[in-house]
Amino acid sequence: MFNVAVVGATGAVGSTMIRVLEERGFPVTELRPLASARSAGSVVEYLGKPFEVQELTEQSFEGIQIALFSAGGQRSRDFAPAAVEAGAVVIDNSSAFRMDPAVPLVVPEVNEDDLRGHEGIVANPNCVAAPLVVALKPIADAVGLERVIVSSYQSVSGTGAAAIEELRAQTAGNLAGDEPAPSVYPHPIAFNVLPHIDVFEDSGYTGEEVKVGNETRKMLHLPDLAVSATCVRVPVIRSHSEAVHIETTEPITADAARELLMLAPGAVVLDEPASNTYPLARDAEGRDEVFIGRIRADASHPRGLAMWIVADNLRKGAASNAVQIAESLVTHGWL
Amino acid sequence: MFNVAVVGATGAVGSTMIRVLEERGFPVTELRPLASARSAGSVVEYLGKPFEVQELTEQSFEGIQIALFSAGGQRSRDFAPAAVEAGAVVIDNSSAFRMDPAVPLVVPEVNEDDLRGHEGIVANPNCVAAPLVVALKPIADAVGLERVIVSSYQSVSGTGAAAIEELRAQTAGNLAGDEPAPSVYPHPIAFNVLPHIDVFEDSGYTGEEVKVGNETRKMLHLPDLAVSATCVRVPVIRSHSEAVHIETTEPITADAARELLMLAPGAVVLDEPASNTYPLARDAEGRDEVFIGRIRADASHPRGLAMWIVADNLRKGAASNAVQIAESLVTHGWL
Repeated sequence: MFNVAVVGATGAVGSTMIRVLEERGFPVTELRPLASARSAGSVVEYLGKPFEVQELTEQSFEGIQIALFSAGGQRSRDFAPAAVEAGAVVIDNSSAFRMDPAVPLVVPEVNEDDLRGHEGIVANPNCVAAPLVVALKPIADAVGLERVIVSSYQSVSGTGAAAIEELRAQTAGNLAGDEPAPSVYPHPIAFNVLPHIDVFEDSGYTGEEVKVGNETRKMLHLPDLAVSATCVRVPVIRSHSEAVHIETTEPITADAARELLMLAPGAVVLDEPASNTYPLARDAEGRDEVFIGRIRADASHPRGLAMWIVADNLRKGAASNAVQIAESLVTHGWL
Repeated sequence: MFNVAVVGATGAVGSTMIRVLEERGFPVTELRPLASARSAGSVVEYLGKPFEVQELTEQSFEGIQIALFSAGGQRSRDFAPAAVEAGAVVIDNSSAFRMDPAVPLVVPEVNEDDLRGHEGIVANPNCVAAPLVVALKPIADAVGLERVIVSSYQSVSGTGAAAIEELRAQTAGNLAGDEPAPSVYPHPIAFNVLPHIDVFEDSGYTGEEVKVGNETRKMLHLPDLAVSATCVRVPVIRSHSEAVHIETTEPITADAARELLMLAPGAVVLDEPASNTYPLARDAEGRDEVFIGRIRADASHPRGLAMWIVADNLRKGAASNAVQIAESLVTHGWL
């Protein structure tokens, strides 16, 4: 049994982490919810009992074995070292340490072995990259993978609770003819599509788009994999969808790829066009699996394959994957 | 001055056709709005005057020089021959004749010359393909074009007025906790994303996705162009967005492509990431131009380029392009 801290316990991902610990029956002795001073004193529920949120300080981690962080990159950089110093393993949902060569970046179904020999910090991947590697790994292993082009349809919950409220309020206002001005996003998100997630880099790609490439390469152990992403916010509350076109090293048919994916850990194939069965954002909500459909030979390339991938960004894209990492560490005695 | 019939005058595209004729000051002597028996008798306004909608029959086209059709493929197949017989040129917004070798498929900024020698019917392209070729044509001419991968973010107005009402009612219901069941789409569209437009073919592509490839090849006169599309419905009222990755024959820098597109007829470049300037669905509403931004070197290919294209699907994707075709025919004496 373990003492588990959740840093950012009142946020969209942190509160989902507590739900996932509960649902998956993680062996918790003490749950310690932590947050900024602003949220300290509020109460979260765990297994029907109230837990008071404590202020995050360098002294917060005494006796903690596992610290799940989801409070932004700056807080991870500031407080993860103190948690490790206190003897905890940090599983960090921010991008702060993901590309650090000393830090494993892990989706357990894909590269669990990378957890071996961690030095106290394990990184949880980006919410687009995590589902993507679940779908790509079996194909890369079977026939090699050379190039990935992905266009995302990302829900506002990836931005946080304030963005969910902004989408709801803006949409209600729009329908009533009195739309409030945007504050979380630079433009209205209600009935709109924003090709802008994270900051723009000199290359013209956004930070989010660059992360998808870097993290996919790192998790698949394919440093030369060519990746191009267009990351787009859509007026959806929950779950990210991805239109994916790949090029493999050896050709593979859509049928063979579908069979591989049906057997892939963590993946569920929903691919019966005749009955309008394909992955949908709203159906993925609350689920830990990665849903894959629209699997077809890419008409534009002799070794191309196209597919449609959907996962709950707060679960497989964040909280559930973090808890699965904790489970792996415990199961293998790698804590 | 011309007698102009609008077939499907009460639909989302047909009513926009009447607005565009008005706004662009098309030289109309008589406007003849036509629709099915169900809509006959209703009234549309043109230049401030009421026009009664007449029932579409084979006798509807006497004295008509230009017939704009937007009432579905079946009505086009059934009634276009009668219109041509009566001496009209048909500009057809359905997919019925688009791939007929005897029928020009035209975006005037791209392949106006194809209108020469028409045989009475001209086809108006698909709402994803029309904006796409406006952006691709100058690049194809300058450096050659080999492959196009496009993921779309298509608004519900592409389905018609009932779909707009479904999105609005479903969204309002969802926010109030009492969501009506879907009827236009097979799944809820409110706060959801549907990777399904048109019918599925055996290849796994949808009819819409196949159209994007076929029509792009035909309009660009590039029969061997490799195209793969994923066409997706998003909860947006108006305007389609497209994430586009292309491969050119000769390399071209993002700066050079941006300059070409700034000079391209019908295109407006909105590409200042530092000030959050990029094309947006809601900003494109009511505009006839194709908006292009997020122009960048594709990190996954040495001759790759990525961009983001947005256009009002009812205007450049349908009604405005049809009226522009009429203008071209008149201007060049090709009627």
